[in-house]
Amino acid sequence: MSVFEKIKVLDMSHALAGPFAGMLLADFGAQVIKVEHPHGDHFRPLLGGAYHAAVNRNKRDISLDLKNPEAVGVVKKLMVESDVLIESFTPGAMDRLGLGYEAAREINPCLIYCSISGYGQTGPYHSLPGYDVVAQAMCGIMLCTGHADGPPVRIGASWIDMGAGMYTALAVLKALLERQDSGRGQRVDISLMDTALSWMSPLIARFSMSGELPVRAGSALAAFSPYQVFKAKDGYLFIGASTERFWLALCQMLGLEELTRDSRFATNQDRVDNREELTKLIEQALASRFRDEVVAGLRRAGIPGGPVLDVGQVLDDPHVQQRGVLHHLEHPDLGPLTQVKTPIAADGEMPLIKTPAPAVGQDTRQVLADLGYEDGEIERLLTSGAAAAPPS
Amino acid sequence: MSVFEKIKVLDMSHALAGPFAGMLLADFGAQVIKVEHPHGDHFRPLLGGAYHAAVNRNKRDISLDLKNPEAVGVVKKLMVESDVLIESFTPGAMDRLGLGYEAAREINPCLIYCSISGYGQTGPYHSLPGYDVVAQAMCGIMLCTGHADGPPVRIGASWIDMGAGMYTALAVLKALLERQDSGRGQRVDISLMDTALSWMSPLIARFSMSGELPVRAGSALAAFSPYQVFKAKDGYLFIGASTERFWLALCQMLGLEELTRDSRFATNQDRVDNREELTKLIEQALASRFRDEVVAGLRRAGIPGGPVLDVGQVLDDPHVQQRGVLHHLEHPDLGPLTQVKTPIAADGEMPLIKTPAPAVGQDTRQVLADLGYEDGEIERLLTSGAAAAPPS
Repeated sequence: MSVFEKIKVLDMSHALAGPFAGMLLADFGAQVIKVEHPHGDHFRPLLGGAYHAAVNRNKRDISLDLKNPEAVGVVKKLMVESDVLIESFTPGAMDRLGLGYEAAREINPCLIYCSISGYGQTGPYHSLPGYDVVAQAMCGIMLCTGHADGPPVRIGASWIDMGAGMYTALAVLKALLERQDSGRGQRVDISLMDTALSWMSPLIARFSMSGELPVRAGSALAAFSPYQVFKAKDGYLFIGASTERFWLALCQMLGLEELTRDSRFATNQDRVDNREELTKLIEQALASRFRDEVVAGLRRAGIPGGPVLDVGQVLDDPHVQQRGVLHHLEHPDLGPLTQVKTPIAADGEMPLIKTPAPAVGQDTRQVLADLGYEDGEIERLLTSGAAAAPPS
Repeated sequence: MSVFEKIKVLDMSHALAGPFAGMLLADFGAQVIKVEHPHGDHFRPLLGGAYHAAVNRNKRDISLDLKNPEAVGVVKKLMVESDVLIESFTPGAMDRLGLGYEAAREINPCLIYCSISGYGQTGPYHSLPGYDVVAQAMCGIMLCTGHADGPPVRIGASWIDMGAGMYTALAVLKALLERQDSGRGQRVDISLMDTALSWMSPLIARFSMSGELPVRAGSALAAFSPYQVFKAKDGYLFIGASTERFWLALCQMLGLEELTRDSRFATNQDRVDNREELTKLIEQALASRFRDEVVAGLRRAGIPGGPVLDVGQVLDDPHVQQRGVLHHLEHPDLGPLTQVKTPIAADGEMPLIKTPAPAVGQDTRQVLADLGYEDGEIERLLTSGAAAAPPS
């Protein structure tokens, strides 16, 4: 039994960040039990089930209605034998259920108790519910993303949620190592807002030094030119000629040698100042060329660049296919489904995907039996609505 | 001595992802030595030094010119006593220096050897250099970000780099736990592209199920309305009325009760279909109101929302200030500088920031002396250019 197979995780979280944290630990080999309301995690219906399926694999599932005191009793029994608990209720909700940290610590002083929230367990906004998009608004990234003359733009996926899940998993492994010395668990407090701020740290450091704010520049980096997305005959691609060598190689590749003698484009700063004209000239040269041809040329010449792919094209990319990061499985309810492995290749292997995301309460009976509940008690819990399970 | 204080990390990485990984470990208490070329990490000049300062604190610094075989010898000596090595050269470069994984494993079979690259150590693109913005283009996020009728948009900060650093730190802690059982180190292979794909996993799962591609919708979530950024009298704010209850509360708050009886806005789908008209009506109501007033109203009413802040305003936010996630220090070269703590609060404390990012080679002499080099040898290494240090 590997070190992770001995680790028991009680995943009481929902939506995206907490489940992703639990899934990372499950992928590493931990025994993760998802505790789910009989109505199901409210993210189950989103994207046709894709959200839930993407972040809950490799887990078992017990369904409990925590409004029922008997269900709370089941959670307390699970706490006794768990190493880790993850929850993402609005701060205060676990306390009101009698499952807050102080209660949990009395039950199991070795428990690593992780709470994920929008703003953290402290501070003026701590009791507000958290949303990835609100953290995007408040951390500064929305005002760094988009066009200088346009409105703020949302990152088109909930990456702060994913990051908060990663910080939680990191906190758990850190706490497991520290517990070996101390013998004690920890209270871990992760927030979407703190996560986003840590990713803004270079821009925050600059502002604190100079008062300078980032410039929104569409697909470009404001400091370099040409360094942005361009349109070719059949699609977009990114070209990043951030150095003199790349600029000269690009002009040669596109048959635009005359630009290297054009005073409007003599230095990077000139090219930044005349970005619009330069973009037009480069897009003229690209208008008759296929994107993949240009990308192949960039790669041969060592110029940073790549195609701008849609999600479907990503799955067709030969590198992505051969890298082994994708896993295709048959989900019992959703059908064929592509999963992305946890992208930590250790000695050549990424963690295995053994089971798809569970159905609500699919393991309720077994988990209760493992806890020592007799058949009669289990049926009573199911009948009273404290627990739920699919028809057996 | 805590468990992390015994962990020695050789951070041979540069730019953003690798240094961030090393910094996370340094923040946890590990002894991290940054190995830096005498000319300095090429990210040192960016953003006036802010990039480097944000991801290299709590480290010591030895400067070595790895083109010099004596410098390579120093690294091999450091490998003997290190637990972890992090490098982010283009795949193959460490091998050409005689410092690749096979060589390292012979020197120290317990070493956890982490490589970070654009595409990973395997697959058709493995030898291409990696850039955050290229991974953004190729993972699909650029085509999910921006406006439906506009070009792809870059996320205005290098978040994939940050994520790759976090996966590296997670891989290191995982490997440390596994090493306790196995007695052996690991070869860890992290890439920007895999990191980005893992964050795209919900959208990849959906595409694989249904062929559906994400819709670019500016600051909005396409599925809900009103759920986007709006303009108030003095700035932008996000309002996310994703449920009927939020919608009714919003109309009441803004004095727009007549909209709840307007057939164009009867259901969420109606409001999505008539987003443009609805946006106009809401912005009319907001035109005379101050942003912070509206945000306070949203919070009182329990409606998801928040201000769209710039990086400077973020630092003035009362919650951010009171949460304790910021650390103000005096950097010896850069002056006053705000750092973001590693956002893992454990038992109420985030990891301490003890020392600012080091100067190039500031600890060269001491690190060499600790390795057993005599004063004469150290001077010879400095004179030959194998090592570098500021004037003593």
